[in-house]
Amino acid sequence: MIKKVGVVSRCDKPGALDIAKDIIEHLQETLEVCVDPGTADELGMEGTPVGQMRQQGVHMIIAIGGDGTVLRAIQNMDDPLPVLGVNMGTLGFLVDVDSRDAMQTVDSILTDFKVDERFRLDVWINDVKLPPATNEVVIITAHPAKILAYKVWVDERELEELRADGLVIATPTGSTAYAMSAGGPIVDPRVDTTVVVPLAPFKLSSRPWAVPGQSRIKVELLLPDKEAVVVVDGQYSQTISAEDIIRIEKASKPARFILIKEDGFYDKVKSKLY
Amino acid sequence: MIKKVGVVSRCDKPGALDIAKDIIEHLQETLEVCVDPGTADELGMEGTPVGQMRQQGVHMIIAIGGDGTVLRAIQNMDDPLPVLGVNMGTLGFLVDVDSRDAMQTVDSILTDFKVDERFRLDVWINDVKLPPATNEVVIITAHPAKILAYKVWVDERELEELRADGLVIATPTGSTAYAMSAGGPIVDPRVDTTVVVPLAPFKLSSRPWAVPGQSRIKVELLLPDKEAVVVVDGQYSQTISAEDIIRIEKASKPARFILIKEDGFYDKVKSKLY
Amino acid sequence: MIKKVGVVSRCDKPGALDIAKDIIEHLQETLEVCVDPGTADELGMEGTPVGQMRQQGVHMIIAIGGDGTVLRAIQNMDDPLPVLGVNMGTLGFLVDVDSRDAMQTVDSILTDFKVDERFRLDVWINDVKLPPATNEVVIITAHPAKILAYKVWVDERELEELRADGLVIATPTGSTAYAMSAGGPIVDPRVDTTVVVPLAPFKLSSRPWAVPGQSRIKVELLLPDKEAVVVVDGQYSQTISAEDIIRIEKASKPARFILIKEDGFYDKVKSKLY
Amino acid sequence: MIKKVGVVSRCDKPGALDIAKDIIEHLQETLEVCVDPGTADELGMEGTPVGQMRQQGVHMIIAIGGDGTVLRAIQNMDDPLPVLGVNMGTLGFLVDVDSRDAMQTVDSILTDFKVDERFRLDVWINDVKLPPATNEVVIITAHPAKILAYKVWVDERELEELRADGLVIATPTGSTAYAMSAGGPIVDPRVDTTVVVPLAPFKLSSRPWAVPGQSRIKVELLLPDKEAVVVVDGQYSQTISAEDIIRIEKASKPARFILIKEDGFYDKVKSKLY
Repeated sequence: MIKKVGVVSRCDKPGALDIAKDIIEHLQETLEVCVDPGTADELGMEGTPVGQMRQQGVHMIIAIGGDGTVLRAIQNMDDPLPVLGVNMGTLGFLVDVDSRDAMQTVDSILTDFKVDERFRLDVWINDVKLPPATNEVVIITAHPAKILAYKVWVDERELEELRADGLVIATPTGSTAYAMSAGGPIVDPRVDTTVVVPLAPFKLSSRPWAVPGQSRIKVELLLPDKEAVVVVDGQYSQTISAEDIIRIEKASKPARFILIKEDGFYDKVKSKLY
Repeated sequence: MIKKVGVVSRCDKPGALDIAKDIIEHLQETLEVCVDPGTADELGMEGTPVGQMRQQGVHMIIAIGGDGTVLRAIQNMDDPLPVLGVNMGTLGFLVDVDSRDAMQTVDSILTDFKVDERFRLDVWINDVKLPPATNEVVIITAHPAKILAYKVWVDERELEELRADGLVIATPTGSTAYAMSAGGPIVDPRVDTTVVVPLAPFKLSSRPWAVPGQSRIKVELLLPDKEAVVVVDGQYSQTISAEDIIRIEKASKPARFILIKEDGFYDKVKSKLY
Repeated sequence: MIKKVGVVSRCDKPGALDIAKDIIEHLQETLEVCVDPGTADELGMEGTPVGQMRQQGVHMIIAIGGDGTVLRAIQNMDDPLPVLGVNMGTLGFLVDVDSRDAMQTVDSILTDFKVDERFRLDVWINDVKLPPATNEVVIITAHPAKILAYKVWVDERELEELRADGLVIATPTGSTAYAMSAGGPIVDPRVDTTVVVPLAPFKLSSRPWAVPGQSRIKVELLLPDKEAVVVVDGQYSQTISAEDIIRIEKASKPARFILIKEDGFYDKVKSKLY
Repeated sequence: MIKKVGVVSRCDKPGALDIAKDIIEHLQETLEVCVDPGTADELGMEGTPVGQMRQQGVHMIIAIGGDGTVLRAIQNMDDPLPVLGVNMGTLGFLVDVDSRDAMQTVDSILTDFKVDERFRLDVWINDVKLPPATNEVVIITAHPAKILAYKVWVDERELEELRADGLVIATPTGSTAYAMSAGGPIVDPRVDTTVVVPLAPFKLSSRPWAVPGQSRIKVELLLPDKEAVVVVDGQYSQTISAEDIIRIEKASKPARFILIKEDGFYDKVKSKLY
C-alpha cells in the first residue's frame, strides 16, 4: 500500500494547478503528499525537489500537464519513481489520464499498479554528463537554417557523415515525438533499439537508422566555426562547438510509467498522430 | 576441420557456373563436395538437394551468384547450414566475397570461421506453412496498380487498417532490400525487430513500424473480390484471396552466414546503397 | 440552356443504378437524356456510347459512382464533355456531389455552369496510342515483387535510370491519387507540371520529380526478360516488354469538370486524405 | 560586346580571392571591371556596391565562391544582372564553372551569351519588404528544437495549419537546396511553381505542396509566445513573433544566370545530389 505520493504540475497554466490542488487535497485525506518546489510555490505549500522524493519515501509521482511536465520530472531523477501523467484535455503519449478521471484512476492505483519500464539514454558532452533522455537527444544547429556537418559512430564504426540541420537520437518512447517529425519509423516500445534520424539532411540518400539499444553512439561536429545545441527531451539544452564530442548510451536506470491500459501503444499512435 | 562442403550456383549465368566449377575442383582436392541438383545438372555431376545436405554431413555451403541464390538455398533448409556467398562482380548484401578472392577465402575458412546468425520469419497461409523468410514477406496485389485493403495485427492488437498496393514485413537482414525500397528504416542486424512497411499506401499518414522480433503478426485482406500474392524473399510466391489469413512469426532456426568481415554492415550499406 | 445530358453509372453497385435512374427520370421531364450502353442495359433502356455523345449533341455528362466511373467516362472521349461526378456516399476527388444533393445541383447547373479544365496525358506504346490519362500513367512490373529496371528521358535528356517496382507519371489532377501513394507532392491543379514518381525504388537517393506539363517523356525498360504493365487511370492496362518504348505527352484536349465549388482543392485534400 | 563586368568574391577563403584577382587582371586587359566593396577591400582596390553596378553600366557579374556568394550578389540587385558563378573546386547548383576553366569561359561569353531567367520571391514581414529570394524563404523556430505552430494561406485559401520546426517556401531553383533537405520534390526550373515544404512537421500526414508560381502566400504564427526567424536564401535573416504576418509572392524581376550548358539541370542533380 502506497504511503507517500509526489505531485508535480505545469505552472504556466492555471488549469493544471487547479487540478493539482484537487488531487493533492484528495490524496492528503489518506496519505502523505510531497509537492515539487515550483508547484508548491504556486499553491503556497512547502516543496520537495523531485530528485529527493525517492529518499523521502515517495512511491510514485503524479505529473499534471503535458508530456513536457512528465519528461522534466523524470529528468530530475537518477533512479526514476513511477510516474502517472494526467493531461489537461489533450492526450499526450506520456499523459494518459484525462483530468476528469484523475481522482478515480489515482484511487485505483494506490493499492496496486503495474509499471512500464522504458529505457533512457545517458548523454555526455566530453566528460560532463547531462540529464538522461527519456524521449530523445537532439543535436541541432544553433543558428536557424545554417547547416551543420557531423559524423556519427556506433560502437566505434562510422555510421555516416552528413550535412544537415542536425540529428535526433531517440528511444522507442521518443519515436513518436521529434524523431517522428524528422521522418523516423514508429517503434513499438518493446523493441530494444535506438533510432538515429537526420534533420533536413542535405543528401538525397539519407535514411533513418535503427541501431541496438545498447549501442555506444558518438557524434562529432565537423565544421570548426559552427555552433550547435544539444537538447534533451526538449527540456534541457546546452551549446556545443566543434571541439566537443557527444556520447550517448543506454542509461542504467529506466523511466518508469504507471501502466493504465495494457498494450495501448498502437491505439495511442492512431488517436494522437493520425 | 571441415570435411564436407555444399555448393550451389546460379545456373542462368555461365559466369557463375564457371566459378562454381573452379571452386568445386579446388575443394575436391582436399575434401568432399555436395552439389545441389540444378548446379550438378549443368556441370554433369550428381546432385544432392540443399535440404538434405545437413543429414549428409555437410558443414557449410558456398553459394555462387547474387543475393537471390543465397536466399533460395537458405529457404530450402529447415535448420540452415552456414552459407558463404560469392558474388559475380556485383556486391550484394549476402554475397560478400568477390569471385577473384573466392579460393583464398574458402581456404581460410576451412579451418575456422565465425557464424553470423540472422533470425528468419515463419509464414503461414491459414494452416499451411511456407518456406521461411530471411529477408521479407511481401503481401502485394496480384493485379498491378489495383489497390488492396488489409488489416494488420501485432500480438492480437490492431496495428493498422490500410488501402495500399501491399505491405512488406521484413527482418533486419531484409531492411536493406525491399523494405528499404518501400521507405523503411535501415536496421542494424543486431536489433531484434521486424519492420512493417506499407507499399504505396493510399493514406498520407502511413509510416513504417518497427515491432518486436518475437511478434505474432497477422494480416487479413479486407476486400472480398481482391486477390493478392504472398512473396517470400522474392523466391517463392503464392496467390491468396480474402478468406485467407496470413500469420508471421520469428522462426525457430535462423539463417547462418559465414562472417568474413566483422561489423561490416554500415560499410556495406554505404557501398551498396549510397 | 442545356438541351441534352449524358448519364453514366457504375453498374456493379445497385445503389449507383438507383441514383442514376432517379436522375434520368428527373432530367427527362425537361430535356433529352443519353445513357451509356452499360448503364442503359441495366436500366432496360437504349444506350449511346460516351464517345459518341458529343456528336449526338450532348452538352454535359453526369457520372454516378466513384472516381473510377468518372475517369472511365473521360477516357472514352477524344474531346471530353464537361462531367459532373455524383458520389455514392464517399467523397472522391472527382465526384464532388453527394447523391442526396444530386437533383438540386443538377437543376442549378442546367442554366449555367463553370468548367474546370485539367490537362490530360497522351500515351503511346511504340506507335500505338492508348486512351489518354486524366490522373496518371503507371508503368509497373507485371510480376508482383519482381523489380524492373528502366530509364526515363524528359525532352531527350536522361532524367534517371532506376531499379524499382515501377513509376507513376501523373498530372496535377492525379497528384492526389496513385502518385501520392508513391510519395509524390500534392500539386495544386493550376500548376502546369507532370510529376514523375518512382514506385519502391531500390536506391536511397530516389526522389519525386516535377517536370514541365509540356514535356515529352520517354520510358524504356532495361532488362530484356522482364515484363511490365502500362496502366492508365487504373482503368486501362496493357502488357509491355523490353523492346517497347513508352512515350507520354500533354494531350491536346483536356478533361473538363463542372465546377461546383470554386477553389475547393485544399479543402478536398484535407477532408479526403488527412 | 560587353564593355564592363562586375566581380564579387567570397572573402573568407584566400583561394577565392586569388581566383578573383586573376580574373580581374585578365578582364582589365580588354574592358572595365567593377569590384564589390568587400572583395575590393581585400584586394586593395576601389569598390562599387553590387546594387549600383547596373547604373554604372555593368553588363554581367562574375561571382567566385559557392552558391552563397551568388545568392548574396543577386539579393543586392533589384533588377539582377546576369551572373556567372565560378566555383572553388566544389560544384554548386549556381556555380557551374570550374575555376580552372574560368578564364576560357569568361572569354567565350564576352562576345555572346545566353541568359537563364529564374523567378524570385518577394517577401514582406507586415509591410516591410525583405531582399527577394532566389532559392527560398525559410520560416523556422528561433529556439532550436522548440516547435512552432503556423497557418499557411495560398491565394486566401487555407493550405494547412501545422505544428513543425518551420517551413520552406522555395522556387524551382531552390528545390535542390533547403527544400530538398526538408523532403520536397526536385522541380525542373522550367516549371512555374512554388513548393511549400514543412520542416519536421509533428503530424504524420504532412506532405510537400506545389502551388502556382503566381500564388500569394501568407504565413501566420499561431502561438503568441513563440519567436521565429525568417531566412532568405540562407543569407538574410530577421526575427519575427506571433503578431507578424509574412507574405510571399513572385517578384517582378527574376534572377539571371549566364547559361553555360543548355539543359544541364538533370545532370547537375545527378552529380551534386546522388
